[in-house]
Parts: sequence; C-alpha cells; structure tokens
Amino acid sequence: MNTPTDERASSDTREAIMEATFRALSKHGYNDLRMRDIGEEMEMTRQVIHYHYDGKYDLMSHFLEYIIEQYEGSVEVDSNAPPREELDARIDQCLFGPKFDDFGHWDRMKVYHELFTYAQNDERHREIFNTHYGRIRSSITEVVEDGIERGVFRDVDAARMGQLITDVIHAARGRKLSLGHDDAPEETRAAIDEFILDSLYLDE
Amino acid sequence: MNTPTDERASSDTREAIMEATFRALSKHGYNDLRMRDIGEEMEMTRQVIHYHYDGKYDLMSHFLEYIIEQYEGSVEVDSNAPPREELDARIDQCLFGPKFDDFGHWDRMKVYHELFTYAQNDERHREIFNTHYGRIRSSITEVVEDGIERGVFRDVDAARMGQLITDVIHAARGRKLSLGHDDAPEETRAAIDEFILDSLYLDE
Repeated sequence: MNTPTDERASSDTREAIMEATFRALSKHGYNDLRMRDIGEEMEMTRQVIHYHYDGKYDLMSHFLEYIIEQYEGSVEVDSNAPPREELDARIDQCLFGPKFDDFGHWDRMKVYHELFTYAQNDERHREIFNTHYGRIRSSITEVVEDGIERGVFRDVDAARMGQLITDVIHAARGRKLSLGHDDAPEETRAAIDEFILDSLYLDE
Repeated sequence: MNTPTDERASSDTREAIMEATFRALSKHGYNDLRMRDIGEEMEMTRQVIHYHYDGKYDLMSHFLEYIIEQYEGSVEVDSNAPPREELDARIDQCLFGPKFDDFGHWDRMKVYHELFTYAQNDERHREIFNTHYGRIRSSITEVVEDGIERGVFRDVDAARMGQLITDVIHAARGRKLSLGHDDAPEETRAAIDEFILDSLYLDE
C-alpha cells in the first residue's frame, strides 16, 4: 500500500525526471533523445525512469501533461472574478509564462514548439500532442463561454474565438523563438486587445 | 555574354534544383540534408548545384526566396480591384495555396514549417528566414494600408493588423500539419472574417 510519504517521494521523483527531460530535450532535440540522455541530467540512477515510465512515448505523454499543467494550473483567478479578468490572466500566462526558479518560460516553450513541429512526422506523437493541446484551448474557450453565459461578452462562437486566440498566442511565441522577434508577445497582446477582443466586449 | 537562350536554360536548371531541394528536404529534413541528397532527386549531375549555389546556406536562401515567390507572385489581382478583394485573395493564397502540378501546397508548407522551427537553433538560418518572412507579411500589410488610404478600411495600425493576420495564417497551417486538424484553414478563414476583419471594414 502506498503511504502518503511514498506518494510524496514518488511525486518528487517524477518532477525530477520531468525537469531532467526538459534539459535533455533542450540539448539533444526530440529526434535524437535517448532515455540515457535524460539519466545524465539527473542525480538519481536512470533506472527510476524505466520504473516510472513505459518507454519514450509514455514519458513524452506525461511530459506534455506536465508542461500544460504548469501553464494551466498556475493561473490563480478568483472563481468570482469577472470573466474579462480571467481571460486576460490566461492569455498573459500563455504568452509571457509563469515564473520558474530555473529553466525559464522560453526554454520550456522552445522544447514545446519543437515537439509541436515534430508531430508532423509521427502519428502516435501527434495523437498524444492533440490531447494535451486540446486542454490549453479549452481553458480559453471556457472563459469565453462563461462570459457569454453571464451576459458580459457578446454571444459569439466561443469555440471559434478560443481557437483563434490559442492560434495567435502560439504564433507569437513561435516568432519570438524562431525569428528572434523579441517584441512578438507584447505586440501580439496589443493586437489581441485591439482587433480580437473588441468583438467580444459589449460596448460600455 | 549571356544570351536569352542561356538565361532560359539557367532558369530551368535553377527551377529543377529548387524542386529537387523540396523533395530532398521532405525526405531527409533540413538538419540531415546533404547536397548529394538533392543531387539524387535530379536528372542532371549534381555538379550543377555547386555551380549555381555557394553551399547549403546560399541554397537555402534562394530556396526560401523561391517558396515565397510561389505564394506572392501567383496572386493575380487587378491593381484597380477593391482592397477587400485583394486582401481576401492574399489570405486565401497563404492559407489554401496556389495550384501546383505535383508536390502540392501542403508538401511545400510542411518543409516551410520545418525550416521555420529549425531557425530556433541557427542564427544565420534565422537571418535568412527573417528576410523572406518579412516579404510575406508586407504583402498583407500593404493591402491594408492601401485600403486605409482609399478610405474603404478603418484607420487601424496596418502593420499590427498585417502581422496578426500573418500569424493566424501561420498557426492554422501549423495545426493542420502538426496536429492533423484538416479543417484548420477553413475554420481560420471564418474566424479571420468574423473576429479580425470586422475591425477593418467600415459599417455598410
């Protein structure tokens, strides 16, 4: 039987493996990544990776889950906050990232975007990515739906709006990472306000 | 001295090299691409590649130029056409692609998106990509400026609007290619109309 202490130890181990995976992916890229590269980024023996994960795809699936939880989970908004405030907080979180102690937002996003492009070439990897990608999009769509229900947003197609905002955020991060457009997140935040959210807000 | 016949022959050769590069990139990816892989996709001897291009970066620079010309150049709109019509044509061209005899739009875009992500890791490659990327964005921005000058679009920040539309198109193509969202281009076209271009069009 797992005691709470066991579970805690196991959760710490998983986090150590996930952070080691980030560093290893950042160095080697997904294509060339071997389990032993992850082991080399850890203080523990790499046997623990094989104990916790059933191969590269299983690890990758948990890894994407881990990234997405970092972005979703850390948005702290009072459930009674106005939908507009929550929407702003979620957009900012995805564009500018939460604070990390080390290995920051853009290092993490570099890995995320590389995995995204790699899904072009690998059906199983694509399937895993889709599941996790859907959760990010939903977190935006649900705030839009909530605002419509509460009568503070216009009655737009919430799924279409959520997808559009998710796409714009993704593209802005990609431009900063690939083309070195360091002002892309700030510029995109302004463009979202000026050209997209104006379709959502009722005239004041 | 180059005669017109020489120039024509040279232009045919360059096109053959560019098309061979597409096929080779599609098979091997940019990272692993060798000049000899391109040679294997051609009927001519691969010495002609070395005769025309000064190494992998020079070839890549011309290759990006070649892709972008295919997308920019083939939009045929009467210069007196309403800006709204030209804007629609350019957006459709980038989203759905021009017609190709073989090796179609999505095969070409798969290579383009892979090169885009690869620019994360290579400063010189990024610089080359930026030059060409800027031209695509300008072709959208200029139509917006034109419409504002003619008084048929609202007086918005044309550069910001052009960038936003370019980003949205890029993200939609990426989703179709990476995540298999086959309806992404059509859905995105509808979202652009509903949520972005409504900021541009004067009330009728």
